[in-house]
Order: sequence, then C-alpha cells, then structure tokens
Amino acid sequence: MDSQVFREAATATIEEIITYFDTLAARDVVSSVQPGYLRTLLPTEVPQDGEPWSAIHADMDTKILPGITHWTHPNFHAFFPCATSYPSLLGELYSGALSGACFNWVCSPAVTELETIVLDWLAKALGLPDCFLSTGPTRGGGVIHGSASEGVLTAMVAARERFLRGKVPGWEGEYAGEDAEVEEVVMRARAGMVALGTGMTHSSARKAARVLGVRFRAIPVRAEDGYALTREGLAAALAECRAQGLQPFFLVATLGTTDVCSVDDFAGISAALEADPDGERVWVHVDAAYAGAALVCPEVQASTRIALAARFHSFTVNMHKWLLTNFDASCFFVRDREWLVRALGVSQAVYGNAASDGGLVTDYREWQIPLGRRFRSLKIWFVLRTYGIKGLQEYVRRGMRMGVRVAEALRARSDLFEIVAGPIFALTVFRAAGERGGAALTLEERNALTREVYEKVNATGKIWLTSTELDGRFAIRLMTAVRTTQEDHVDRAMKTIVEVAERVMKG
Amino acid sequence: MDSQVFREAATATIEEIITYFDTLAARDVVSSVQPGYLRTLLPTEVPQDGEPWSAIHADMDTKILPGITHWTHPNFHAFFPCATSYPSLLGELYSGALSGACFNWVCSPAVTELETIVLDWLAKALGLPDCFLSTGPTRGGGVIHGSASEGVLTAMVAARERFLRGKVPGWEGEYAGEDAEVEEVVMRARAGMVALGTGMTHSSARKAARVLGVRFRAIPVRAEDGYALTREGLAAALAECRAQGLQPFFLVATLGTTDVCSVDDFAGISAALEADPDGERVWVHVDAAYAGAALVCPEVQASTRIALAARFHSFTVNMHKWLLTNFDASCFFVRDREWLVRALGVSQAVYGNAASDGGLVTDYREWQIPLGRRFRSLKIWFVLRTYGIKGLQEYVRRGMRMGVRVAEALRARSDLFEIVAGPIFALTVFRAAGERGGAALTLEERNALTREVYEKVNATGKIWLTSTELDGRFAIRLMTAVRTTQEDHVDRAMKTIVEVAERVMKG
Repeated sequence: MDSQVFREAATATIEEIITYFDTLAARDVVSSVQPGYLRTLLPTEVPQDGEPWSAIHADMDTKILPGITHWTHPNFHAFFPCATSYPSLLGELYSGALSGACFNWVCSPAVTELETIVLDWLAKALGLPDCFLSTGPTRGGGVIHGSASEGVLTAMVAARERFLRGKVPGWEGEYAGEDAEVEEVVMRARAGMVALGTGMTHSSARKAARVLGVRFRAIPVRAEDGYALTREGLAAALAECRAQGLQPFFLVATLGTTDVCSVDDFAGISAALEADPDGERVWVHVDAAYAGAALVCPEVQASTRIALAARFHSFTVNMHKWLLTNFDASCFFVRDREWLVRALGVSQAVYGNAASDGGLVTDYREWQIPLGRRFRSLKIWFVLRTYGIKGLQEYVRRGMRMGVRVAEALRARSDLFEIVAGPIFALTVFRAAGERGGAALTLEERNALTREVYEKVNATGKIWLTSTELDGRFAIRLMTAVRTTQEDHVDRAMKTIVEVAERVMKG
Repeated sequence: MDSQVFREAATATIEEIITYFDTLAARDVVSSVQPGYLRTLLPTEVPQDGEPWSAIHADMDTKILPGITHWTHPNFHAFFPCATSYPSLLGELYSGALSGACFNWVCSPAVTELETIVLDWLAKALGLPDCFLSTGPTRGGGVIHGSASEGVLTAMVAARERFLRGKVPGWEGEYAGEDAEVEEVVMRARAGMVALGTGMTHSSARKAARVLGVRFRAIPVRAEDGYALTREGLAAALAECRAQGLQPFFLVATLGTTDVCSVDDFAGISAALEADPDGERVWVHVDAAYAGAALVCPEVQASTRIALAARFHSFTVNMHKWLLTNFDASCFFVRDREWLVRALGVSQAVYGNAASDGGLVTDYREWQIPLGRRFRSLKIWFVLRTYGIKGLQEYVRRGMRMGVRVAEALRARSDLFEIVAGPIFALTVFRAAGERGGAALTLEERNALTREVYEKVNATGKIWLTSTELDGRFAIRLMTAVRTTQEDHVDRAMKTIVEVAERVMKG
C-alpha cells in the first residue's frame, strides 16, 4: 500500500468514522449475529497475492459492522462505558505512526516522560494524596497499564515481595536456587499468605490471586452497609485469618464496585488495619477503575474521603471507562515505586544503556508485566487538554444527573420497580416491585419477573442493559455514563422499560 | 472537539504521517534529549478550561518529536523491530472508532470471531502443526495478547494448573478456603515445582516465574552448540532437578533468542522429555516472538523443523515485530484451550449472557490476564490481506538477505571484526577482531575496543545498534528487519561502522 492509497483510504475512513458517530443512534445497540456467523463469510487462509484496499474495505460494512456491539451508542447502558472521543482518536493516530516498543526511557524519552507528567496531572485532578505523585514524598508515581486487571496483579506481586522481604531476611525475590535455605523459608511463609477482598470485589483480584497462587478470601458485605467493606467487617476477617494461622498481606478496597458502585469505607479500613497487630504489612490497593473518574469533581473527592487513601499503597482508575480516552488507558498509581522495581525489575544484557545504567531515568518495563509498551500517554494528554478540568467535570456530572433521572422515573413507578442500589456514579440497580395485584411475591417470582423484563427489554435491540445477582436477588443495572447519552435517550429508554414491565407484570 | 475540527485535524495528521515516513531517513534515529527535558516544557496541571486543537497540535513538533526514537527509521538496527505499516494504521483507526471492552463474545461478536479466524490463518501461514488451530484435533486455538510476556505468563499459569490437577486429586484451582486439606497439599506440591529455560531465554520468562512465585532454572547453553538448548543439556537439567527433589513443569524453548537468534533443538527437547520419567507433565512453550515471523517462508519451516512443535503446548509470535503490524499484536497459540479456561476463567454475575451461558462461544477473557480487550485482529486482517503470503515472504527474505550482506561486509574486514553469531533471521552479532597490529588482544582489550566502536557509532546519531554479552564477551547486535531498511542503508551503515572501527582500532 503506497502513500497515495493510504491517503485516500484514511481520509475516507475519517469521514466514515464521523458518519458512524453521527448516525449511531439509529443502529441496534447489540449485534444480533449468531455464533459462528463470520467463519461462513471469510476464506480459510491468507491469500497468496495481496488484495487491493477496495476489496478489503468493502468487507467492513458487509461482514464486520453487523458483528459489532456499539459501546458508544447512546442506549448502551450495560456494564460500564468504554470511551471514545475525537481527541483520543487523534492521539491513537499519532501513536500508531510513532510506534515503538518503548520499554526503556531511551527507546523514546517522550513516551516515558509524557506518561509520568500526565499521570501527575491526573493524580492532582482527582485529588489523590501526594504519595501517588512522582514528585511526592514517598517516591510514588503513575504508570499506564493495559487494564485494571494488570494493575491489581502488579500490586499483588509487589505486596507479596514487600511482605516476604519484611518477614524473611536475605530474601531477594528470585527462586534461582542460589540460596536454597532462604527459598525454603519463603516457600513455607508463602503458604500462609492470604489476599483479601469482599463479595463485591472485581473478578480480576481473584484472577490475580490465582496467578500468584495465593489464598484469596472474600469478606461478606451487607445490603444494610450499602455493600461496602466496614471497619467491623475487616476486623472480623483479619481476626479470623490470624486465628487460622493465615497472614493477610493484601486488601482490595473498591471505589465503585461493578455490581452496585458501592464505596468501601476508607476510614474504617484504616482503623481496622491500625488496630491489627500486623496490619502495617497489609498492602491496600484501591480499585477505582470506573468511579475514580468522578473524583474530578470536588464534591466526590469529599464524599468518598479520597484524602484517606494517603494511608494506602496503590490506586487504579481506567480513563478508558469514564474519562473520554480510548481503551487502553488504565492509570495505576503506587505509593513507592521501588516496590514495583524490586518485584518486577528483571534485566537482560541487551537492555543496557547509559541512561538506565546511570539510574537517571524511569524504565517503565520495571513497573509492569509486559516488556514493550505503546505511546498511550499521548491520547490522555490530548483528552485532558481538550476538555480541561471543567469539561471533564461537566461530562461526569451529566452522567450522574442522568442516573438520578433514572431513579426518579423508577420511583415514580414504585408499583413496578424497587431500587436496589444507587443512583450513584451514574449507575442505578433495580428489580421488580414486591407485589402484583395486591399480592406479595416470593423471591423466586420477583426474580423471574425481573429477568423477564430484562430479557424483553434487551430483545428489542434498542437498549442494552446488564444484570447482576445480590444475595440471591436478580437485579438490572442501568448505567448512564456513555459520552453520547443525553436526557432524551434516557427518557425514551425508561419509557421502553416501563412499557415492557407493564406488559410483563400487569399482564 | 466537534466533527469538523476532528475532520480537519485528522486529515492534516494523515498528511503529517505520510511526510514523517517519507522524510524519516533524514532524522537522527535516536532522540538526543536529556533526562527530564519534557517536564521543563509543560505546565504542572491540567488546564481548567479546554484548549483548542491548534495549541495542542503545535506542541507535537516542538515538544514531543524531539523526544522520539524512530523505530521505523531505516537505520534502526537495535533490539528487534517494532512494526508500522499503512494497512495496520487503517486497522487501528477503525478499531479506535469501534472501541469496546470486548471481553465476551456478545460484547462484539466480530471482535472475537475475526480473532479466531485470523489466528487460524496465521497458524497455517507459519506452518504450525494443527494442534494450534481452533479447528484442530486437540481443541487448540489462538488469541491476541498484549505482549509475549503475557503469553509466557499465561502459559506458565496454565501449565502449573495442569501439573497440579494431575498430581493432586480434587484440586480445582482456587485457594478460597473451601477444602483446606487439598489446599495444604497443593501448597506443599508447589514448593517443589520448577520452570526451566536457558541462559538465552527472554527475561519475560524469569519475570513470569517471579509473578507465579515458582522456581526458575536457566540451563547453560554453549557457543559450540550455537547457544541452543540440546537434548543433552535438557536431560542433564532434568536429572539434576529430580536429584534435588524438584519437579519440572514448564520449559521455554526459543525460536530466535534476543541475543543471538539461536533456535533450540526441538527434536532434542522432545527426545529428552520422552526419556524423562515424568517428562509428559512438562509444558513446553515455544517463544518465537521475533523469528517466528520468518516461518512464512517454507525454507524456514523446514530448517527450524517447526512440525516438531506438534509435541509442544503453546507458541507465541509477535506480529508487531517482523510482520508489519502495529504494536500490540502478540499472537499466542495453545494446544488445548481448556487449560487456559480452567486456569484463568474467573466469573462474575454481571458477565452472564445467553451465548456464554450456553457454551456456544469463545469468551477470550478466559484466555488472558486482562478482562477487556481491543479489536486488534482488524489490523492483522488488513495486513495479511494487503501483503498476501507472497508479500510477507518477500519482506522477510529481504531482511534476511540484508543480514547476509552485513555478514559479508564484516568478513571482508576480518582485520577489524569477528562474527560471533549469525547472520540468522536478519541478525548479525560481532565484536572486534582478536588482534591489533599483529599482537593478540586479551578478552578485556577486545571488550573495551568493541564497546568503544559501539558507543562511537551510536554517538553519530545516524545509526542505532544494541549490544549484548556472551560468556563475558561484549558484542554488537545489528538487525536488518525494519520495513524501511534497504540495501543502500545497510551499505552506508556498514561504511560508518568500518570507518569508526578503523579509527578506534588502527588509531
């Protein structure tokens, strides 16, 4: 493909993208293809001779787009959003052209330095305590990971090494057979280590514990506490672990759980850890993957008491969810970067260079699982500058206001619905009301009705909702944080939901 | 940013990208900024009000480009290449617009299905045994990971679970306290497990072992074996492990090591494992991150005996290195996908949907560490179709021919240079010749001279080389696989290297 073909193709693609966003609302939000649809449409092998762009391009409309579920659609109310925006796309465009495997500073100094700078910008914009700044008092700083799953895994590995080095003198982190005695002690110590989360903690924490091969305990949380981890809950779990001879070394605290956007009690967590005989050794990772975005608003910094995170060790927020930046832009902050480097800094002769060897620079390969990395800070920089603090606040607040609007519509039909959680952080969780025709419904009946409403609304293809289960109660999640979603979309969505519920519940 | 601003900005960016590639050779390949250069040029916070694109755009030329090291530059001979190509950029453009966190099939069926299909295409194009096809006899298949580091980590986790389930009846993979007795047995069994690689294995394998917290042993390889793992070397390592009471469960075999592009002896590895009493339980992961690309040529399929990988369990090749696809496009193939799902399939109520619950579809979240994922197969599809098999072969063969050309130039000056390894897979490794002015040089003298040549060549800014160390011998690596590199670039690079070496060595 020569530059002229690229010029024409790319220019046309830009027009297509603009048209796609402008006409998105007219499409069904969820793809309705059947499993295996694409295999019947494509050849089974790479062609021997190259094909012209015209042939490739023709397949986009006919074969690919029918299989796309539109995450930027104004009626995408499922899961959490996955962002796109024009400035972010420009960032991706440049970053694609300047592509490199920028694992060390020298591999492209701008890639490393812009990342450090924009993550400091973001930390300040979110009101994070200064222990998470690269210029802060604890040698902290931020790094862009591929996903919040990588963040919790990285944090857990660093936490394990910190714990073991505190417990086993001489341990340097590598099981290379050089000191068999120390390795044996470490192996025994490890068997008793346990990572903690709650019943609402994201699945990535359990996956990380599996990868490390450490025990994981989910502390139960209660509806009456808003599904948040409390001081009492954590204290009881710590005591139970100690009684069983287990050693807690890691805790995930969540700001905005997937199911209900609950926020764990940071003050209570700090208090429980301070009262624990070995609580000092427990690394607290704050998973704010989605709702952390709302910290751009001072009122959310206050309500979540984010300043209390000064007691904690790492923090993740995904700008690719609610901060207008394309996937992937998972921003991970650590209190002391040395713990990442000790846990993950594995070298090789070919990486050597004067800047790294002199200790003058950050080499982000030591802060993450992968070696190579893309120039992801560029799109973040473009987004933060294009919107500015005020633009980001306005966008986040609009999402939250629409959550309130959803809740109002649900409350206005308390004959049909009961709100189970929210509205909080643009998420409202609800289920079928507790009676029909004056008669109280059993749990099974309510679950069945809620599921029927949920499935029938999704079957229209016009709206996409996801569901969850809370203490055996099936519930519908409705999220209103997508960039394109406006008040009238929400109103029409609620109208559809009410109509379906009336048909299902009233007969 | 409205659509008109985006239209103008993106159209201009496309022209800039074309100009960038057209004029790339005139730039210095490595950035010459000093550590910390960017912080002095940028504000310390996100602006309160959004900025216009003109202001943001102006900073690209003045602040960012000076800090870029140009991986697509024709004189980039460092590390391995990191690819860009026009069809790949088009793929990124579409994928940015269609962004979603496509962790489940229903989240965008096309994202999952195209990935399965193009990875089958790639496996066939590389001549991989059919155990790695999604339609093959062993329930195999491919997935796109972010990096080869993620591939080896994923493989190691799957291997550990496979090993433990074979050894510990009742073990289901989760340390959740539900069967304390089984967990204790597993903890003890784990302490003896050991992952194997060689002295040439990529650092990502050691990093993966650290993350899992398993022992890692690097089997020494010898210059006289071409730095390849042999049957004898592996047999001796297995015997030593067994004698120490350790249980090997994982082996990284490399096709194209970072330092010298050596290829481990697949037949020898198979023979050693067959002769071992418990060799059946050792998962063999083939790291072909870079050189696997060359398997598009039938002569390389034959010379590496890739058909013998039918005995092995997983295989990684990074299309973003030598197959013209933008980072990231790390293609991971597994013999039996069930082992990935068992090791990494962690669920959560909110992921539930009819297609997944019915077992009809692939949910790639169960094949990887992250939950979310980008639409990365699109750029692979565009690249494979644009170039076709013949175009890919031509490109790979050109890189290899230029490696031969480098070696010829070095041999022509045997008064200055000695080839240490290669030319193989477009990589040639060399050092200063063993005598100067008729007198034999010591190892230290040769290392010092080689390093001086290396540093002075890099200091020109015109060429970028990396170095390595082999059994204490400092050596220079010269890689010729970048898309833009042509014969005349290589000839001029060799001219510079010879001139510098003459000055350094002849005074």
